[in-house]
Amino acid sequence: MKKLKVLVWSMCLVLGACAVKPTTEVYTSERGTQWEWNKGTIVVHTPERPAGQKSVLGLTVPKMDVVRVGFVGLGMRGPGAVERFTHIPGTQIVALCDYEQKRAEDCQKCLKAASLPKAAIYSGEKGYEELCKRDDIDLVYIAADWLHHFPVAKCALEHGKNVAVEVPSAMNLKECWALINLSETSRKHCFILENCCYDWFEMNTLNMAQQGVFGEVIRAQGAYIHNLEAFWDYYWKNGKGDKLGWRLDYNMRHRGDVYATHGLGPVAQALDIHRGDRMATLVAMDTKSVVGKSLVEERTDSVCNNFRNGDHTTTLIRTAKGKVIEIQHNVMTPQPYNRLYQLTGTKGFANKYPVEGYALDAKQLAASGVQPKLDDLSSHGFLPQKEMEALVEKYQHPILKKYGEMAKEVGGHGGMDFIMDSRLVYCLQNGLPLDMDVYDLAEWCCLAELGELSMDNGCAAVEFPDFTHGEWNVVKGYKHAFASLEDEAATAKKAAEITAKLKQQGAKEWANNE
Amino acid sequence: MKKLKVLVWSMCLVLGACAVKPTTEVYTSERGTQWEWNKGTIVVHTPERPAGQKSVLGLTVPKMDVVRVGFVGLGMRGPGAVERFTHIPGTQIVALCDYEQKRAEDCQKCLKAASLPKAAIYSGEKGYEELCKRDDIDLVYIAADWLHHFPVAKCALEHGKNVAVEVPSAMNLKECWALINLSETSRKHCFILENCCYDWFEMNTLNMAQQGVFGEVIRAQGAYIHNLEAFWDYYWKNGKGDKLGWRLDYNMRHRGDVYATHGLGPVAQALDIHRGDRMATLVAMDTKSVVGKSLVEERTDSVCNNFRNGDHTTTLIRTAKGKVIEIQHNVMTPQPYNRLYQLTGTKGFANKYPVEGYALDAKQLAASGVQPKLDDLSSHGFLPQKEMEALVEKYQHPILKKYGEMAKEVGGHGGMDFIMDSRLVYCLQNGLPLDMDVYDLAEWCCLAELGELSMDNGCAAVEFPDFTHGEWNVVKGYKHAFASLEDEAATAKKAAEITAKLKQQGAKEWANNE
Repeated sequence: MKKLKVLVWSMCLVLGACAVKPTTEVYTSERGTQWEWNKGTIVVHTPERPAGQKSVLGLTVPKMDVVRVGFVGLGMRGPGAVERFTHIPGTQIVALCDYEQKRAEDCQKCLKAASLPKAAIYSGEKGYEELCKRDDIDLVYIAADWLHHFPVAKCALEHGKNVAVEVPSAMNLKECWALINLSETSRKHCFILENCCYDWFEMNTLNMAQQGVFGEVIRAQGAYIHNLEAFWDYYWKNGKGDKLGWRLDYNMRHRGDVYATHGLGPVAQALDIHRGDRMATLVAMDTKSVVGKSLVEERTDSVCNNFRNGDHTTTLIRTAKGKVIEIQHNVMTPQPYNRLYQLTGTKGFANKYPVEGYALDAKQLAASGVQPKLDDLSSHGFLPQKEMEALVEKYQHPILKKYGEMAKEVGGHGGMDFIMDSRLVYCLQNGLPLDMDVYDLAEWCCLAELGELSMDNGCAAVEFPDFTHGEWNVVKGYKHAFASLEDEAATAKKAAEITAKLKQQGAKEWANNE
Repeated sequence: MKKLKVLVWSMCLVLGACAVKPTTEVYTSERGTQWEWNKGTIVVHTPERPAGQKSVLGLTVPKMDVVRVGFVGLGMRGPGAVERFTHIPGTQIVALCDYEQKRAEDCQKCLKAASLPKAAIYSGEKGYEELCKRDDIDLVYIAADWLHHFPVAKCALEHGKNVAVEVPSAMNLKECWALINLSETSRKHCFILENCCYDWFEMNTLNMAQQGVFGEVIRAQGAYIHNLEAFWDYYWKNGKGDKLGWRLDYNMRHRGDVYATHGLGPVAQALDIHRGDRMATLVAMDTKSVVGKSLVEERTDSVCNNFRNGDHTTTLIRTAKGKVIEIQHNVMTPQPYNRLYQLTGTKGFANKYPVEGYALDAKQLAASGVQPKLDDLSSHGFLPQKEMEALVEKYQHPILKKYGEMAKEVGGHGGMDFIMDSRLVYCLQNGLPLDMDVYDLAEWCCLAELGELSMDNGCAAVEFPDFTHGEWNVVKGYKHAFASLEDEAATAKKAAEITAKLKQQGAKEWANNE
């Protein structure tokens, strides 16, 4: 009888509990991410920042007279990077590493051409681990295939090196958090090599946005729309058995915008993401895969039943301040190359593709310091050539003034690669915060997994984790760091002297070597 | 003791029940729409089709030698429509109705200019009810303000008239379902006057898509991006107290894409919506309102705390066949007019704004019947002028061949209004199904309320109701209906004779009137 009463009461408790609060179920994705529903929104679990660990917002490391670099990954993007660095004073190419020794060796040619000292060669599966152990390297520059970006970056940071990683620099949330923790504990830079942040139109337009030319920018879009039909077979294949190559294989296995940063990087800077605003929610929607499937079937001569990545993926993001970012990804269907770069402001409009244009009315153009020839100039059309040139002239980004001309000579995606590398070295030599920090890296790269979560759950809304752990509103406005003219000059002088010495040394080495 | 046992067992049952199936809560929106959560997706309740009621897919009404029209709403769009009808043989303008008598009277001028018989005049709050009661009207053509589209259409259908309604033709789900039921019960047409379906680029591109020029079209986009700054004060105001005018007031009160059909109509036809595919799910995301708020504050000289419609709204739609439609709405910020019309196919690409272009490689262009001058023609750029002209020439839409020249003379948004009216009359005179049915109307107009539901619930995914009650896959492919050449000629002959007679009669009337 007593037992029975106890049973009744315990049941009452349970009943009560389940009546007022149904326990929310926690799901775990294939990638091991834990999440739960909050009404219609997917909320992924955010790990606590480990005790004693501080943010790396505005992180600086001591000035470097010479930036000593080790390159890892010398297949597609790597050799170009090595070549560019031979043009940057105050840098030394210390080590070259690739899975295939020959590809590493081949890069010595660039050094010889610039009469710079030979670099040490590393190769094989774990060659990068040996490179990272060296104590004469300041920066590990990673241009490997996507799956090796993270392990190499992790190894480099664990060995106290600053890191620059090609995009996408982290393939999922776990890698994003790991790089954040490594940067926060090691107090070293983890820089995302997002070259599109340094393209001409984007930089000048960013400058205009920061000066208020467009009023308040409330919507921005970007994309990577590039039909890779002609390129698929140039991505490294792991032996004869590998019919697809790593990039097509990756697209086959993963849904979501797996290459978002070219589109997202430049607009995230224009919207001050984690410098006063933050990406709060996203929804993603893709088309079925038609071209992707057929690419696999042509190469494997078998039916492809599950090509995960849709031919065209669209992601919408709402920020804490009520702004919207749209990002698209399509590497499959035939159409002109397009990064869809566009800023929609309350007083003006900028659009890059297929034709570059700005729309401002006469009043706003005048307020922006350019007197229009026509009084009836309206924002219903793009500015005439003359007005546009005057506007661009007036708002030419200081970084382009400094590196633009040389960048066009050296090249690399029209020069933006060289501007990116030059800025990276400039900030390291002058002991300044870099243009992108590890939170940018995480925010731009997490789109892939968050979008996959959204689409695998009926295009549900997904909350962004706050990678800054609540510090997204500490820095007010995105800024590029600059040294005083004196310091800048002093640094440049030292850099030139060091490079001159290195070239003497290199000339000797190569002469003895003939 | 027994009682206690019973209690225990009943509790067990309750416990079991609430463990396996938590009862889903039903919500009711401000507009009275009932919906519930299904995981992360909002599912709105779909009313059953009343017993004995049949679909109006492919609906036809008996041939009309003369189409007798009554116009309701003669403020902005109406007078132009009346003028255009004076150019269409086999039509008679029987009645003119507007809230303000003078605006109705003014339209007699068009009839006089065309020496057509005078029309009866109706005015005042309920003038349209009297017009709808006439037994000598076949078609009620509605160009009133948004809030009066539905009540007038309802009244006309209830009086057994065919109806053509300006856009947006239904402002919410309730109105969508009501018009569907009225069309299904009355067996009369309820036609959405979506003129953008008849624009040159859209029609030719639709023809190309239907002929497979782009392969399988897997993504399409459209928009209404038009800065209305210069127009807000021309929308009718209800007396001195009305500071905003009906359109700005409506935008202030309603979130969501309230003007989606110009963008959605043409792409829905290209994707065979409810002719083999259907819109299954949407997600919508808007920016905050900045410009909208300020417009209200300027006009009311008071703070506007809740301008519901974001300055820029984006809606993503996924179809049952795994295709994606993107629709945007922005009538607030300064930028060039843009309907974003774009089709992305597995073999080709079409884009209208800011410059019209097609991207096809040499192989696909040749397969489409146009031999390219260049062999290395790639889809990485738009077709050169010559190839584009040849493609457009080859795929010129038959409807443009028929009405294009005259349309450019008569005008009305560059002629597309005239083509729309001519097609409407052609189908009625020849007893053919109309180009758009009441399900198109509902599908295109429901975006506003479904988007509002999405955004008011954290940008959740929302399931589309199936307005066809399961018949979306019965018709295979979107088609324009045509009569045989003989029937067409006979109808045209009759139409010309009737108009000639009317002009004699009109000439007399106006002469006696001098």
